[in-house]
Amino acid sequence: MLEGLKWRNIEGKRLIIAIACDKNKNILMTAFMDEEALRKTLETGYMHYYSTSRKKLWKKGEESGNYQKVLEIYKDCDGDCLLFIVDQKGVACHEGYYSCFHYKLKNGKWVVDEIYKDDHS
Amino acid sequence: MLEGLKWRNIEGKRLIIAIACDKNKNILMTAFMDEEALRKTLETGYMHYYSTSRKKLWKKGEESGNYQKVLEIYKDCDGDCLLFIVDQKGVACHEGYYSCFHYKLKNGKWVVDEIYKDDHS
Repeated sequence: MLEGLKWRNIEGKRLIIAIACDKNKNILMTAFMDEEALRKTLETGYMHYYSTSRKKLWKKGEESGNYQKVLEIYKDCDGDCLLFIVDQKGVACHEGYYSCFHYKLKNGKWVVDEIYKDDHS
Repeated sequence: MLEGLKWRNIEGKRLIIAIACDKNKNILMTAFMDEEALRKTLETGYMHYYSTSRKKLWKKGEESGNYQKVLEIYKDCDGDCLLFIVDQKGVACHEGYYSCFHYKLKNGKWVVDEIYKDDHS
């Protein structure tokens, strides 16, 4: 589909890593895309992922309503990771936090400490 | 080693995704860690990765001098991705750019357009 991508063998599937950020540089989540998920994302303008646990295409927000509208797309130098700048509706994390990255390592333990918050700016 | 991590089968190895950001939220790079790379990172305070192409442990900066000193560590909700806030010496990308994410999708083509720059703030 797109040139310059390096699909990786992840859990036995041909996938690429996808990072979603908001336009204020807050990282919302990382997940995976197969070719179908990437194609759907490009076609619709909304983030689609491949769920390695459910083994199927997954439109972000299809259950929660927390859709991610694509604004810009970047890739890294070796092409195995895509970065999507998105407009996040609601929160990204199914645990109710704005970002999935809300566990910080303190004294060898993971404790809730949000590095990224919805700053609405 | 650390609880709550979800190691994935990536290219036939048991790996976790590692994102390195600077303290201004700029994403520098993504790569992989095996347990040894994570242990070395925790022990030394400097980023170590597992190279899937060279199939070996790799200390970031060992050839370029562009080391990454670890400041903070986060994980995401499902534990398959670690986020390291680092102090980046020099640039992160072997192509000479501050961040590895310097290709933007424009009209179906990847063109150099740096979303993250060293803002020294």
